[in-house]
Amino acid sequence: MKKKSKFVKDSLVIKSEMLMPNDTNPLNNLMGGRLMYWMDIAAAISAQKHSNSMAVTASVDNISFRNPIEIGSVITLSAKVTRAFNSSMEVYIEVTAERIPDQKKFISNSAFFTFVALDPSGNPKKVPEAVPETETEKELYEGALRRRQLRLILSGRLKPTDAKELISILNQNA
Amino acid sequence: MKKKSKFVKDSLVIKSEMLMPNDTNPLNNLMGGRLMYWMDIAAAISAQKHSNSMAVTASVDNISFRNPIEIGSVITLSAKVTRAFNSSMEVYIEVTAERIPDQKKFISNSAFFTFVALDPSGNPKKVPEAVPETETEKELYEGALRRRQLRLILSGRLKPTDAKELISILNQNA
Amino acid sequence: MKKKSKFVKDSLVIKSEMLMPNDTNPLNNLMGGRLMYWMDIAAAISAQKHSNSMAVTASVDNISFRNPIEIGSVITLSAKVTRAFNSSMEVYIEVTAERIPDQKKFISNSAFFTFVALDPSGNPKKVPEAVPETETEKELYEGALRRRQLRLILSGRLKPTDAKELISILNQNA
Amino acid sequence: MKKKSKFVKDSLVIKSEMLMPNDTNPLNNLMGGRLMYWMDIAAAISAQKHSNSMAVTASVDNISFRNPIEIGSVITLSAKVTRAFNSSMEVYIEVTAERIPDQKKFISNSAFFTFVALDPSGNPKKVPEAVPETETEKELYEGALRRRQLRLILSGRLKPTDAKELISILNQNA
Amino acid sequence: MKKKSKFVKDSLVIKSEMLMPNDTNPLNNLMGGRLMYWMDIAAAISAQKHSNSMAVTASVDNISFRNPIEIGSVITLSAKVTRAFNSSMEVYIEVTAERIPDQKKFISNSAFFTFVALDPSGNPKKVPEAVPETETEKELYEGALRRRQLRLILSGRLKPTDAKELISILNQNA
Amino acid sequence: MKKKSKFVKDSLVIKSEMLMPNDTNPLNNLMGGRLMYWMDIAAAISAQKHSNSMAVTASVDNISFRNPIEIGSVITLSAKVTRAFNSSMEVYIEVTAERIPDQKKFISNSAFFTFVALDPSGNPKKVPEAVPETETEKELYEGALRRRQLRLILSGRLKPTDAKELISILNQNA
Repeated sequence: MKKKSKFVKDSLVIKSEMLMPNDTNPLNNLMGGRLMYWMDIAAAISAQKHSNSMAVTASVDNISFRNPIEIGSVITLSAKVTRAFNSSMEVYIEVTAERIPDQKKFISNSAFFTFVALDPSGNPKKVPEAVPETETEKELYEGALRRRQLRLILSGRLKPTDAKELISILNQNA
Repeated sequence: MKKKSKFVKDSLVIKSEMLMPNDTNPLNNLMGGRLMYWMDIAAAISAQKHSNSMAVTASVDNISFRNPIEIGSVITLSAKVTRAFNSSMEVYIEVTAERIPDQKKFISNSAFFTFVALDPSGNPKKVPEAVPETETEKELYEGALRRRQLRLILSGRLKPTDAKELISILNQNA
Repeated sequence: MKKKSKFVKDSLVIKSEMLMPNDTNPLNNLMGGRLMYWMDIAAAISAQKHSNSMAVTASVDNISFRNPIEIGSVITLSAKVTRAFNSSMEVYIEVTAERIPDQKKFISNSAFFTFVALDPSGNPKKVPEAVPETETEKELYEGALRRRQLRLILSGRLKPTDAKELISILNQNA
Repeated sequence: MKKKSKFVKDSLVIKSEMLMPNDTNPLNNLMGGRLMYWMDIAAAISAQKHSNSMAVTASVDNISFRNPIEIGSVITLSAKVTRAFNSSMEVYIEVTAERIPDQKKFISNSAFFTFVALDPSGNPKKVPEAVPETETEKELYEGALRRRQLRLILSGRLKPTDAKELISILNQNA
Repeated sequence: MKKKSKFVKDSLVIKSEMLMPNDTNPLNNLMGGRLMYWMDIAAAISAQKHSNSMAVTASVDNISFRNPIEIGSVITLSAKVTRAFNSSMEVYIEVTAERIPDQKKFISNSAFFTFVALDPSGNPKKVPEAVPETETEKELYEGALRRRQLRLILSGRLKPTDAKELISILNQNA
Repeated sequence: MKKKSKFVKDSLVIKSEMLMPNDTNPLNNLMGGRLMYWMDIAAAISAQKHSNSMAVTASVDNISFRNPIEIGSVITLSAKVTRAFNSSMEVYIEVTAERIPDQKKFISNSAFFTFVALDPSGNPKKVPEAVPETETEKELYEGALRRRQLRLILSGRLKPTDAKELISILNQNA
């Protein structure tokens, strides 16, 4: 059976949340753990949309938390599949935080999650290719290969000498 | 004032959980997002213990999710500080899953989180050095430098050419 | 100070959720109460965006629940301000439900909530006018007056004989 | 099989709650969405009691939120079936709020929910008639017909010209 | 200032809950811990009502859990103050469980909690006497003295030889 | 089949929690009900570990709550089986509270819970004997018999005259 392809934009998922007391630490700022919980749900829905199947979290790339986000803020998570690999998909999540009465808005975080599509018996199933259209989508698509190599090296499943794309990720961030 | 030092073992935090329905996905297995939420709490307490202060999540390293963990399983998170850097601490979290009636037990995940210690006004404060004692603690202590360089490169705050320790992390995992 | 106006589309808020066990009744379908809780949060964020202030729920119009939505489904709430009245705003929320692996998707509910904008002391404050652009936005804008009259009658604050627009809402639905 | 009848008072359900931080908005007052969630549970139990079966939410009538209710307040929801129609029941919910240390107590809200009784296969089943006894119960019983007509008109299932009782609801509230 | 007295019945609090998935253990029955959480809230409200003040849990007497309660059941907690002692109150909580579609209903548990009334600064404050009226209320009132002695002995604050009422509690249960 | 024996220490379960807003009462201190909920989970895991089976709460002994525990505190629950009786186990839970930035740490509570081990059909099953090793474990083991007699008397299943060990529990606490 031939593998279909789908546009990246069709996997877009938006999830808005209002920061409630139990989402915050004793300094009244969003806890990292709560944000990762929301990221996981937004990304899981995006991977489901792309694959038309159940999808489970396979890995999470390095995430940085820079700006504290106060209680009462509005959080908007925006997730979409960047690239598909056989039965797995990389999902990019961007998080915007907004203190509306103060009119302060900033991009607080971004993250890459990887999901595996599963058939009803729980076995991995092939997923459609993800076709990028915009410039940003294309860049994310290109970078996915480098990030995948780093992921495989970090989890001990790829030799660094076989990771031709790795040098570029290092240069990219330098 | 001279910076004190503390033993790694004094930051040990253990957190046991029983998998409840809302912790699972539609396949009845633990959601990655819920596990990261618990990891963040266990690691935050460990960082608090080491620094005797509030501590907030600064970053999370790559995490892999390999084995599905079924509803009703018992999860044990074990967190300790591996190394301290000025006002930040790397925390190592190991997660064990157990289906007790079936007598199945396995290490399901491990992760490195970085926390920053804060004084009561919310400003970063110096933390004691973390002194490793066992072989495993010493290995984690040594590796912390390499992981920190990778973290800084990935977040765009260090040039790859300045990362002498990076080659070793790549070789280590090869 | 002159009251500004803002486009309806600028108040759009999207909130996606995955149906977890605790969101469902013993038949494994979404509880009406949980859906109204999510509607209230999505609508509150939309009203905050429009008014650039805190906003609290003033009323909820009649809501019908027709199709059962199964556990594991994806719910997408989409909220936007339809019209502003002095310090209050009507918000329209549309809910789509999707069982992705079965490729079933349907509009499950819609609702009108009314919010009041509050200044930092908790007193009502004037809000910008809401300017509709599309055909749908214009229809919702027009209907807002009729719905408001019915709301005032139902809460005993308007005499039916003063509700010239009421006949049209009745005819509209006939 | 002949349909039995039951007294309204036998469906009475009382549900008390203490306002916790996560039930409140950034102004520390009860969120409308949380209250509707509790209303739905109290009303569902009442409808179950009357019908001796599972019952699911069919619709919610207009609800007004007038008085802010502070964190720490005690909320008492009181629900009972007002009238039964074939397989559906109208449930009236009255909400009292109390700040006990301040000795302030007030009726904060009332609402009408409609539930459908379901047999174990999930199909609608006939419910007993609801027999009102007190003056208040009788008034609620009488009004149920008017409210039902308005509900059907608002959801597009009844022509206004067929709603003989509608004029009275309008007059009643004028 | 003279201490007022209040009727036991004025402290009655009823709290109904529907058993949701997260309230149950892997056998789908209510967890003891969840029931004690609800008992604590119902009893706290009752103690607040009697004392017209904040009230915090001082102790919990022995509780037995005999009958499993299935998911979907309706739980009704009924709490009232049995007797007041200076600044503390004993609260009796009775729990009824009901599987409505199966028409099974049984008293599942009872418990005695003790609360201390606090003034706004958090110091214990005197509470009104509790005046029992019915036979059951009088029996609970009488037994409160015996239970208090046992409580004080078990927490090491009373010598058994000073506990004249203790023999009766033992005989009562024999 | 011969009943095996296991060491007490093999049933040790540690559960750390950080006090979040929804765990506290309006005075910002830990609610007794939340603590009992956590105790029940920690103790249930301990009983599962000892019996290698599902285990459900059978009873809870008298618990005292003395020191208020503030929001932001770290709670450490430590549970282990003290003694096994046919199909039931007594579990001892000790709770430590810590306000880390203030370097305040204290034992806040202790409690005895009893669990029954169940086979997959939900019937009670025999459990291994619990073998104490340390002095403290031996004392808890010895006291278990006295506590069991009191429990049986309090629940009306043992005549006080048959409770030879009861006098010692009274003397012990005097």
